Amino acid sequence: MNLDDPVLQSLNFLNEVVDRYPKSISFAPGAPHERFFAGISVARYIDRYCDHLRGKGFTDSEVRRRLYQYGPSRGLINDLIANALRCDEGIEVGPESIVVTVGCQEALFVTLRALGCDAVGIVDPSYVGVAGAARVLGIDIVPVRDLTRLDGFPVLYVAPDFANPTGNRMSLAARQRLLADARRRGVILLEDNAYGFTAADHLPPLKALDTSGQVIHFGTFAKTCFPGARVGFVVADQPGLADAIATVKSMVTVNTSALSQAVIGGMLLEHGGSINAMARGKAVLYRRNLRMLLDAMDRHLTGLPITWNRPAGGFFVVATLPVPVTDELLEHCADSFGVIWTPMRHFHLGGGGTHALRLACSYLDPEDIEEGVIRLARFVEAL
Amino acid sequence: MNLDDPVLQSLNFLNEVVDRYPKSISFAPGAPHERFFAGISVARYIDRYCDHLRGKGFTDSEVRRRLYQYGPSRGLINDLIANALRCDEGIEVGPESIVVTVGCQEALFVTLRALGCDAVGIVDPSYVGVAGAARVLGIDIVPVRDLTRLDGFPVLYVAPDFANPTGNRMSLAARQRLLADARRRGVILLEDNAYGFTAADHLPPLKALDTSGQVIHFGTFAKTCFPGARVGFVVADQPGLADAIATVKSMVTVNTSALSQAVIGGMLLEHGGSINAMARGKAVLYRRNLRMLLDAMDRHLTGLPITWNRPAGGFFVVATLPVPVTDELLEHCADSFGVIWTPMRHFHLGGGGTHALRLACSYLDPEDIEEGVIRLARFVEAL
Repeated sequence: MNLDDPVLQSLNFLNEVVDRYPKSISFAPGAPHERFFAGISVARYIDRYCDHLRGKGFTDSEVRRRLYQYGPSRGLINDLIANALRCDEGIEVGPESIVVTVGCQEALFVTLRALGCDAVGIVDPSYVGVAGAARVLGIDIVPVRDLTRLDGFPVLYVAPDFANPTGNRMSLAARQRLLADARRRGVILLEDNAYGFTAADHLPPLKALDTSGQVIHFGTFAKTCFPGARVGFVVADQPGLADAIATVKSMVTVNTSALSQAVIGGMLLEHGGSINAMARGKAVLYRRNLRMLLDAMDRHLTGLPITWNRPAGGFFVVATLPVPVTDELLEHCADSFGVIWTPMRHFHLGGGGTHALRLACSYLDPEDIEEGVIRLARFVEAL
Repeated sequence: MNLDDPVLQSLNFLNEVVDRYPKSISFAPGAPHERFFAGISVARYIDRYCDHLRGKGFTDSEVRRRLYQYGPSRGLINDLIANALRCDEGIEVGPESIVVTVGCQEALFVTLRALGCDAVGIVDPSYVGVAGAARVLGIDIVPVRDLTRLDGFPVLYVAPDFANPTGNRMSLAARQRLLADARRRGVILLEDNAYGFTAADHLPPLKALDTSGQVIHFGTFAKTCFPGARVGFVVADQPGLADAIATVKSMVTVNTSALSQAVIGGMLLEHGGSINAMARGKAVLYRRNLRMLLDAMDRHLTGLPITWNRPAGGFFVVATLPVPVTDELLEHCADSFGVIWTPMRHFHLGGGGTHALRLACSYLDPEDIEEGVIRLARFVEAL
């Protein structure tokens, strides 16, 4: 692999632009809103988790060992995650089918390695981390534009709910069709569910519909709890697969920070063990932000040479311009109009997205969304 | 890679034996002693680190962002680590040459990948994680028995201070010779310094002697602080290398848990920023345990058909028997004599260690060390 690969470098470039224009309004980072950080109490969550362990019969010394000693590669809070997935998503798996990981990124990485596949289909465009993981592992990438043609790869990465970067959501019928096609063709589906919690109306994830072991499900607590903990997970109930994933993980990071797992575990317990209950306030804010962004675009951009999609959830909107959307155009826009976004070409694997940009609304406050769209309008007018 | 690889499975097997014979005295786990866990205060360390940030001018909201938001792949506490390495080890590098990782294992993993080498020399026997990382990455492994012959690999893994599993330590002259040879042959040295802190008399690590960028240095806080945080680091001051390592890391785990880094940072700050000061009490205990183990072996094993080495530090002693030391012999010893150890063959890459076993003394209390050696004597007598 060439480490100068554009996919591997794009995140660095974007962070750099955000740093260089600190007075700009940035629709670039798909990061969680920081208003929720003030309510975080690490010590309280850890205490809550420790109380839970004591309630299960752990002595103080066993509690300390669990928090501070080396732990199982598979994870510590698998039972809490299994319970949440059953209640929140209708996914019925035992704790032994789950591996807790250093964010969803490590889950994707170790799973790709454990599967031993030499090619992975990736819905194009997608979150850059999947292609990055494949490149680090030397696995061929097959960009997939059409989910009705599952050709040329044994494994397909797909995010059915408000995918990054498109905001697209698959209908229930589309999910069922994809599952049936995957089963017929023997394709394993890697389902990334990072944004499903933002839905006003819940649709079952592929894994909840999966009766033939076709789906491996990925989750993260970065959006539902907070990113600084770095806790994600993979659900792999195919025979032997969770074991293989844990074995690979043992050679990548040994195990996931027990402190981080205790914090997430305690936070879950405070919300009755439900990820949805924990994330309810966040989902309300993200839906409000998305509605505000789309409203502001309607008010300020209608009639200008720009079009955009209308996602029903998630963090992202994609807009299309009549000109090529390059990194240079981004710098010009940041410099002259004080607004930042992400060129869609960074997310495309097959050379698409040349005229499109991604707007993320998760990180902003209402007044910035409004002012950001006004600046965007000035930029588009001047094109 | 075959995931049934013996190296990848050996740790699981050992954990399983320990679980199956809970009444045995176990010299198997090279884990930190748990007496220090009672003194850990996660909340206090995090507060200490946050105070440090405020002292540097961070606002409360910036402090929260640092703890709870996504962070740089490179790490957050690089400045504290750089300072500790300068004070404690005489290693002079800037924070930008350090990447903070999910334990030393991830440091080894992402560095091997970033180097892009197709073969790695590994001192034989060694810590199994290095070979495991190489296998996951598809990098050829060259077992190295003789450090004066640096042939057939561009990169060599070596642990100069009380290596796991041998307890061997390189003299200052041997370090200088290895460095000179490596420079002449253009071999990069991967120096693992997990056990150096246990030394009564400090020797400079290879990196402190390195004037030509020949050495990449690896450290872990698992032994000096505690394993549950999962924080390690790599020192790579070769041009562009820390950047490349951080880029690979961004596709493996994105970044290291900010919570864990804050805890380690606060713990360091409580000890004046010195890893050695922080680990002093631990070093005293480990030296005492090692002395007790060797004393007990002298008293109970002298005259029996067993020989052993006499490390001056670290967690491990290696003993040799007149019979093959197999997993079956271990199970017999656990079952009939109530004492557990690790067959050395698990650490050997080139088929050696067939008649040897490793005794780890880090995890045990004095009475268990004494009783464990008495049981070991009964086992050897009955061979």
